[in-house]
Amino acid sequence: MHRTKVKVVEDALDANHTIANANRADFDRAGVTVVNFMSAPGAGKTTLLERTLTGLEGVRAGVLEGDVQGSMDADRLAALHVPVTQINTDPSFGGECHLDANMVRSALPEIVLDDLDLLVIENVGNLVCPAEFKVGEDARVMVTSITEGEDKPLKYPLMFRTCELVLVNKIDLLPHLEYDLDRLLTNLDAVHPGVPRMLVSARTGEGIEPWREWLVAKASRAGVPA
Amino acid sequence: MHRTKVKVVEDALDANHTIANANRADFDRAGVTVVNFMSAPGAGKTTLLERTLTGLEGVRAGVLEGDVQGSMDADRLAALHVPVTQINTDPSFGGECHLDANMVRSALPEIVLDDLDLLVIENVGNLVCPAEFKVGEDARVMVTSITEGEDKPLKYPLMFRTCELVLVNKIDLLPHLEYDLDRLLTNLDAVHPGVPRMLVSARTGEGIEPWREWLVAKASRAGVPA
Repeated sequence: MHRTKVKVVEDALDANHTIANANRADFDRAGVTVVNFMSAPGAGKTTLLERTLTGLEGVRAGVLEGDVQGSMDADRLAALHVPVTQINTDPSFGGECHLDANMVRSALPEIVLDDLDLLVIENVGNLVCPAEFKVGEDARVMVTSITEGEDKPLKYPLMFRTCELVLVNKIDLLPHLEYDLDRLLTNLDAVHPGVPRMLVSARTGEGIEPWREWLVAKASRAGVPA
Repeated sequence: MHRTKVKVVEDALDANHTIANANRADFDRAGVTVVNFMSAPGAGKTTLLERTLTGLEGVRAGVLEGDVQGSMDADRLAALHVPVTQINTDPSFGGECHLDANMVRSALPEIVLDDLDLLVIENVGNLVCPAEFKVGEDARVMVTSITEGEDKPLKYPLMFRTCELVLVNKIDLLPHLEYDLDRLLTNLDAVHPGVPRMLVSARTGEGIEPWREWLVAKASRAGVPA
């Protein structure tokens, strides 16, 4: 039974990969840089985007919002006049715990790619499956909040290993926690040596500027041959 | 394709249900109360168990620990001389994001049920899929940390709806956050009206005693006809 299960999963990941490539081709054609933005529930993805997306010099940014149910995060971002498209992952059971390439593909007709330079795909809050499913992104960024503890890179290694930037959020709470930031960074380097990391506070705005600059630089490289 | 996918999921849940019933029969035979303990990553499940399991009057408690990789949480609990069994969910890809009935069943030969009154199954940190898969538990308890925000019941309704106790953890941080506890409780009642809830701090020990008493009462009811 277990062997069958692994085969089913492998087939699903293969099919996903094919659709992710089709998404990627569409994004490339339109010159849109796509960031797959991931974290555990409540790590602060939406607040980080609220802090960032309105002040991106010369970059037209949009968001594709993934949630099991509802559109609360999408509504928050739409209030800032950022174009937002919502995907809900709950067709008939408890809901999917991640976005896959096909869900993103099914949302593409609603997104005017030619009007965008940057599309941030805010994934479902989860540290496991979102890392397994490519959606056609150029880059993966993940957020770890210091309130989650220093051990998370070791417990969810694929997520921390497959991203190219880690935002360490809620650092304004450092004085109120027994949090060992050095231990987090050591754990991070153990699973993904040298991965770029930024210490940020979505609440106070501390450290937000480098993250904004990172997004602008990413978006500016779209269409430029590597 | 979508219809096929839903069918596959339904079949998987049916198969899971059958195995969950077999687990349940084994637990009943041994007179063990089983609690499925769930939350987002870093909400404080292990720390809550550290605070609780050593002081359970007259109740022999054990833990079945579910993680994608590693045994850090199991090691923490084993240090308290609580019998712990580890399940890792990462056979060949990124890892399963939840425990299912078959994983629990495969661990049962390593657990001496006759030596236990209470088995706490600490699920993988995730607010979606763990709620979809019964493992043979008597009760589900979930933890929501106030650092995750007040909106989580609305965003992950199945998890909050299918548990019979909600622990609201990290309340020692209330003075340092703009957290609206009333809004959380309103959201909780919107998806699961009147569900019992306890405000706790695993860090300071505040509110831990009622949670300990809840576990003792649960364990004492095992084997007693309803």
